[in-house]
Amino acid sequence: MINSNVAELLKSEGLLLQEVTLKGWVRTFRSNRFIALNDGSTINNIQCVIDFENTDETTLKRITTGAAINIKGTLAASQGKGQSVEIQVSEIDILGDSNPDEYPIQPKKHSFEFLRENAHLRVRTNTFSAVMRVRSKLSFAVHQYFQERDFNYVHTPIVTGSDAEGAGEMFKVTTFKDNEAPVTEDGKIDHSKDFFGKETNLTVSGQLEAETFAMALGKAYTFGPTFRAENSNTTRHLAEFWMIEPEVAFMDLDGNMDLAEDFIKYVINYVLDKCKDDLAFLDQRLTQEDKSKPQAERSEMSLLEKLKFVVENNFKRVSYTEAIDILRNSKPNKKKKFQFPINEWGADLQSEHERFLVEKHFKCPVILFDYPADIKAFYMRLNDDGKTVRAMDVLFPGIGEIVGGSQREERYDVLLDKMKAHGIEEELWWYLDLRKFGTAVHSGFGLGFERLVQFTTGMSNIRDVIPFPRTPQNADF
Amino acid sequence: MINSNVAELLKSEGLLLQEVTLKGWVRTFRSNRFIALNDGSTINNIQCVIDFENTDETTLKRITTGAAINIKGTLAASQGKGQSVEIQVSEIDILGDSNPDEYPIQPKKHSFEFLRENAHLRVRTNTFSAVMRVRSKLSFAVHQYFQERDFNYVHTPIVTGSDAEGAGEMFKVTTFKDNEAPVTEDGKIDHSKDFFGKETNLTVSGQLEAETFAMALGKAYTFGPTFRAENSNTTRHLAEFWMIEPEVAFMDLDGNMDLAEDFIKYVINYVLDKCKDDLAFLDQRLTQEDKSKPQAERSEMSLLEKLKFVVENNFKRVSYTEAIDILRNSKPNKKKKFQFPINEWGADLQSEHERFLVEKHFKCPVILFDYPADIKAFYMRLNDDGKTVRAMDVLFPGIGEIVGGSQREERYDVLLDKMKAHGIEEELWWYLDLRKFGTAVHSGFGLGFERLVQFTTGMSNIRDVIPFPRTPQNADF
Repeated sequence: MINSNVAELLKSEGLLLQEVTLKGWVRTFRSNRFIALNDGSTINNIQCVIDFENTDETTLKRITTGAAINIKGTLAASQGKGQSVEIQVSEIDILGDSNPDEYPIQPKKHSFEFLRENAHLRVRTNTFSAVMRVRSKLSFAVHQYFQERDFNYVHTPIVTGSDAEGAGEMFKVTTFKDNEAPVTEDGKIDHSKDFFGKETNLTVSGQLEAETFAMALGKAYTFGPTFRAENSNTTRHLAEFWMIEPEVAFMDLDGNMDLAEDFIKYVINYVLDKCKDDLAFLDQRLTQEDKSKPQAERSEMSLLEKLKFVVENNFKRVSYTEAIDILRNSKPNKKKKFQFPINEWGADLQSEHERFLVEKHFKCPVILFDYPADIKAFYMRLNDDGKTVRAMDVLFPGIGEIVGGSQREERYDVLLDKMKAHGIEEELWWYLDLRKFGTAVHSGFGLGFERLVQFTTGMSNIRDVIPFPRTPQNADF
Repeated sequence: MINSNVAELLKSEGLLLQEVTLKGWVRTFRSNRFIALNDGSTINNIQCVIDFENTDETTLKRITTGAAINIKGTLAASQGKGQSVEIQVSEIDILGDSNPDEYPIQPKKHSFEFLRENAHLRVRTNTFSAVMRVRSKLSFAVHQYFQERDFNYVHTPIVTGSDAEGAGEMFKVTTFKDNEAPVTEDGKIDHSKDFFGKETNLTVSGQLEAETFAMALGKAYTFGPTFRAENSNTTRHLAEFWMIEPEVAFMDLDGNMDLAEDFIKYVINYVLDKCKDDLAFLDQRLTQEDKSKPQAERSEMSLLEKLKFVVENNFKRVSYTEAIDILRNSKPNKKKKFQFPINEWGADLQSEHERFLVEKHFKCPVILFDYPADIKAFYMRLNDDGKTVRAMDVLFPGIGEIVGGSQREERYDVLLDKMKAHGIEEELWWYLDLRKFGTAVHSGFGLGFERLVQFTTGMSNIRDVIPFPRTPQNADF
């Protein structure tokens, strides 16, 4: 008796006529005879054929969508199309029933909104099981890429005493009871009495701490949750999301661009290789979805074509200054089609501009670099022109910015001046220490993991690529 | 010219007489001639020999501990002991100075307390670089183990609307300003106006959410940060720590014990194989530390012996009831040496009892199972005796409990009764749904990652195995 799973059995033509046992959940049951059984090991179901004349009526009635069953039977060549093997069932046990009048996940098309409300069950659908398997494999590809290259995984802190990172609004972490925080004699909140003895927040980035590791171990990366308390109810924002942040000593911005491009191609190649069935399904799904859209909104490429395009082409590297020239002279700018017209150097680029550059002008992923210092973070290295910094953004079709990074300011005096301008030089004394003792050129970037999963799976709403999304007014499950 | 790192060069006898270039940090500089250079790629330094007669005085003075340098030179067979190659330096650049009067990490023994206060620099020491490299490799081993076995990595939420998990005190997450939370007309805090529209906390466990994935994809695991707002100032507790939680459908407690044992052996074997130099150093360190202790407190085994002992021996499986008998009849119990005497069945085991079982009685890792229901969590499966549950704890020498797990209660009615007794059946409606629709036997466990790193590295204080520890009154860096 072979105790196996669906993924293995579907590839096991050599085992024909063997006795097998298998546990899983019923996806569909038709003609009182054919069970489509799934156990999560693959997007594909295995057909289990019931001898209904010799199966009692009560059992047959309990074979419903969602029910957990245990079957024994014989592996046989299948007569049905799209499958090579099936199981001729000799014995079936109902492990757990699923009342069809109550079970929300019926074999029909559910809206993603409905499935979000049932996020505890949505991974039982084809689409979400595929997305979540791809997400898992992508995660592993991230680790494997960095570990093969001797990067050290660093768990940077989630609770931080700093609110100086400047990447966005923060969530407060406290053990004070609501409206019962103790106050000092002069009426201020007495944070020394809070759990950590000071005000604490959820981190917006592990970069600054990761730099401490890079400046000791040479190569480091984070992969952990980060948070933004911004009231952004969009398809591109989450209040809680996972971020990947490599940081490398002795690496300049050119090396950083090379790393980002190589890394993204590696992880996408990895899932192209390991998730063929899931990606084929998601490719089909997106193609179907596209058909319901007006011609103008349809994608020029299918999902798989887009993924292959990214891994097979060089990312175009363009300075911010060049990009501004291109945008200023572009048709949509001249015809005033941009919501935010590009008039002069120094403008912050909006999503519409990034998408124009990627999707219309260059028609490939683009890396913009050397941005104006004024629109970028304090820790980015100032160029000799005194007005641009060694920043880079990787822009992707459909997604926009997927990576943001920079060469870090390694000069103590220059950094100190910048930090003083923000009033953060005392709070981040330890960050300055990295420039005081054995400083060196170093660089890194941040990649929002959910954006990468969105691109790879073709899901349009970021809430559909994370198991239990956290957004304004929603922390269910 | 070969651009390389220390780890590679030390293994590169075949490259003798080649020109190399290398960047790193000075560990020591002696006799105005010999630089011990480290770049974090290995615990070992490479000796770089300066031609001091042809190097200017100013440069020589800047070669100080902690300085970042770039050297060019020729790889040569080394005359010194303990190393096969060295670099005859032809050119040296000081990239970043390190003022010896200010740099905290001097080449002498620093106390771990002092280094905790300089956690941003401590990974530049031998001990902490070794610990953090081992931690990184252990992390990867965790992922590789599960991925090779088709488990799906699931990012369970960090911010949770639930406070029902019952694993410990929680931190509140909010965007309300201190003492300015809005109140409703009847004077209660109006949580609907908070960011997530309800009270939210930092998660204490991803288990319940991971179960939703296991019951769809079959095999899932988490590896993420978890939190306890407990005022425990011990060498074994952190307020923020990383936890690994596999969860498997159709697996009972026996399978769970097999999985835990196999998993732990795999990850320890992995670092025994991949971190030889770091573990050899940590082994020596612990042996040295032991020598300063009174004879009775010294460890019977060295660190490497302990690790090999764990991977080479079966974990002893003992029921709680048997364990109570052993403890009741033990010498320390009879001689009243236990702080908490064991008088009757039902007692919760303390660290002193666990350590007696592991270190004195069985002298090997122990898995205790079938605990009294009263001292375990609501979700554990009730045995037919009506008084014990299918729980298991893996106990390790020196560490105590390293894994806690159980077969989960899969019967809707039984679980509902238990949840009602805790008043959590409405809040965790979705968790009940897993038993309502296609329920099945399933099991899982949680492993505190820092405890595992402690065991593997021989570090006695848990604050020394995580980059930036969070503990009561401390959230520095």
